[in-house]
Amino acid sequence: MKIAILGTGMVGQALAEKLVSLGHEVILGTRNIEKTVATKGKDAMGRPAIGDWLPMHPEVKLATQVEAAAFGELIINATSGFGAVSALENAGRENLKGKVVLDIANPLDFSKGMPPSLWVCNTDSLGEMIQREFPEARVVKSLNTMNAHLMVNPSVVPGDHSVFMCGNDAGAKGEVKNLLNAFGWKDQNIIDLGDITNARGTEQLLPIWIRLMGTFGHPVFNFSIVKGTPA
Amino acid sequence: MKIAILGTGMVGQALAEKLVSLGHEVILGTRNIEKTVATKGKDAMGRPAIGDWLPMHPEVKLATQVEAAAFGELIINATSGFGAVSALENAGRENLKGKVVLDIANPLDFSKGMPPSLWVCNTDSLGEMIQREFPEARVVKSLNTMNAHLMVNPSVVPGDHSVFMCGNDAGAKGEVKNLLNAFGWKDQNIIDLGDITNARGTEQLLPIWIRLMGTFGHPVFNFSIVKGTPA
Repeated sequence: MKIAILGTGMVGQALAEKLVSLGHEVILGTRNIEKTVATKGKDAMGRPAIGDWLPMHPEVKLATQVEAAAFGELIINATSGFGAVSALENAGRENLKGKVVLDIANPLDFSKGMPPSLWVCNTDSLGEMIQREFPEARVVKSLNTMNAHLMVNPSVVPGDHSVFMCGNDAGAKGEVKNLLNAFGWKDQNIIDLGDITNARGTEQLLPIWIRLMGTFGHPVFNFSIVKGTPA
Repeated sequence: MKIAILGTGMVGQALAEKLVSLGHEVILGTRNIEKTVATKGKDAMGRPAIGDWLPMHPEVKLATQVEAAAFGELIINATSGFGAVSALENAGRENLKGKVVLDIANPLDFSKGMPPSLWVCNTDSLGEMIQREFPEARVVKSLNTMNAHLMVNPSVVPGDHSVFMCGNDAGAKGEVKNLLNAFGWKDQNIIDLGDITNARGTEQLLPIWIRLMGTFGHPVFNFSIVKGTPA
C-alpha cells in the first residue's frame, strides 16, 4: 500500500521503518524539506536526527506534505499534535477525501514545563477536532497511548497488553486493524472503543503515561486492560 | 483501627464491609442521618439501598460527618466527588488535622449526560483541591480507578493488575499501602506515582474507564501496567 506519514520525528521514523519492512511504499511529508534534511546530529533521546536518519533509510522518501498526501492511499498523522490540523490543511483537503487518516498524535502542551498538560481534553479531543475539520476523511485514532518503538513492536513488552482504536467509520477501523495485526498486535489486544469521541478517553491516558515514564525511568511499558467475569 | 468513611453509596458500603471483616471499627458519616436511614429499596445497580443495607450490617455504625471524622483515626473520602470538599468541611478541620485522608472520589460531571466529563482535570485535580483546602490533612489518592467491589477484592480480576497511589506524605502512603495489602493487593501491583499532583493522572483514567465499561457491558476489569526491559 502507498502510505503517507505526516511528521518526521520519532513516531514517523518508527512507523516508516516498520511499514517499509512490511513491503509498503512510504513517503514522509514535511513542512520544509531543506530544514528537515539539514537536521543532523542526535535528537534529545540520543537517536539520529531526521537528516542523518534519511540516508540510512533510502527506501523511505521525503516530500512536501501535499506531495506525500497526494501519494498516500492511507495518511498517518504523526505530528506533534500542535501542528496536526495545519499539517493536514497543508496536505490538502482533496488529498484526504475518502482516505483513512490514522491519527497517532497527542495534544501535549509542554509550554508550562514537565509534565505536560493537554491543550484540548475532557469535552473535546484532537481526534474529534481532526474529524470535524476534515469531515470527508475517515479518521481513526489509535496507537497514541504508547512509545513509538512499542507501537510497531508489541512484543518488547511481554504478554498481553492493549492498543485502543476509535473512529466513526467501521471500514476505516478495519483497515487500521489489519495494520495493527501486521505490526504484531493480536486481535484479543485490540480494543475498539467506538466512535471518534472516544479519543477523549485515550488522549487522557497521556497524563498518567508521562507520570509512569517518570516513575519507571523508561518508556517500555503499556496499559493492559485485564477483565474478570461479572458475577 | 478506627476508620471514618464519608459517603454512604456503593463505594462506602464496599469499603465498610471489607474493613469490618478485617477487624476495623467503622463509622459511615452522612450529611443527613434521617434521610440516609429512610433510603430504602434497590439502587440503580439493583443493590440494597443504604437504608436497607445498614440493618444487614449492624457492625457498621452511622453518624454525622463530624461525629464520624472525630472518631476516625483514618478518614476515607468516598463521596460522589462534587460533595467532597463540603463533606470534609462538615467533618471539621480539627478532625482531619494530622490524619490520613484516603481520597477515592472522582470529579465526575454527569450533568451533560453519559458518558460524564470531569469538572476538574488536566491542570488540577480533586485530590489536589482537597490537599490545598485541608493542608493539615495527609491526603492520599488511591483506589479511584476501579469498581468498588474490585477495590477490596482484587482477585475478582485474574492475575496481576494495578492500583495507583499518590500523596505528599510518605508515612500516609505507607498506611494506605498497608490497607491495600490487607485488601489483597500485592506490593508488585501497587504503583506509587509520587506527590498529590499525580492525581491528575489517575483521575483522567476515568473517561476511558467509563468508555471501557460501556464497551464490555460490565465493570469487572482493571488497568494493568505491564513493563518490558529497556534496551
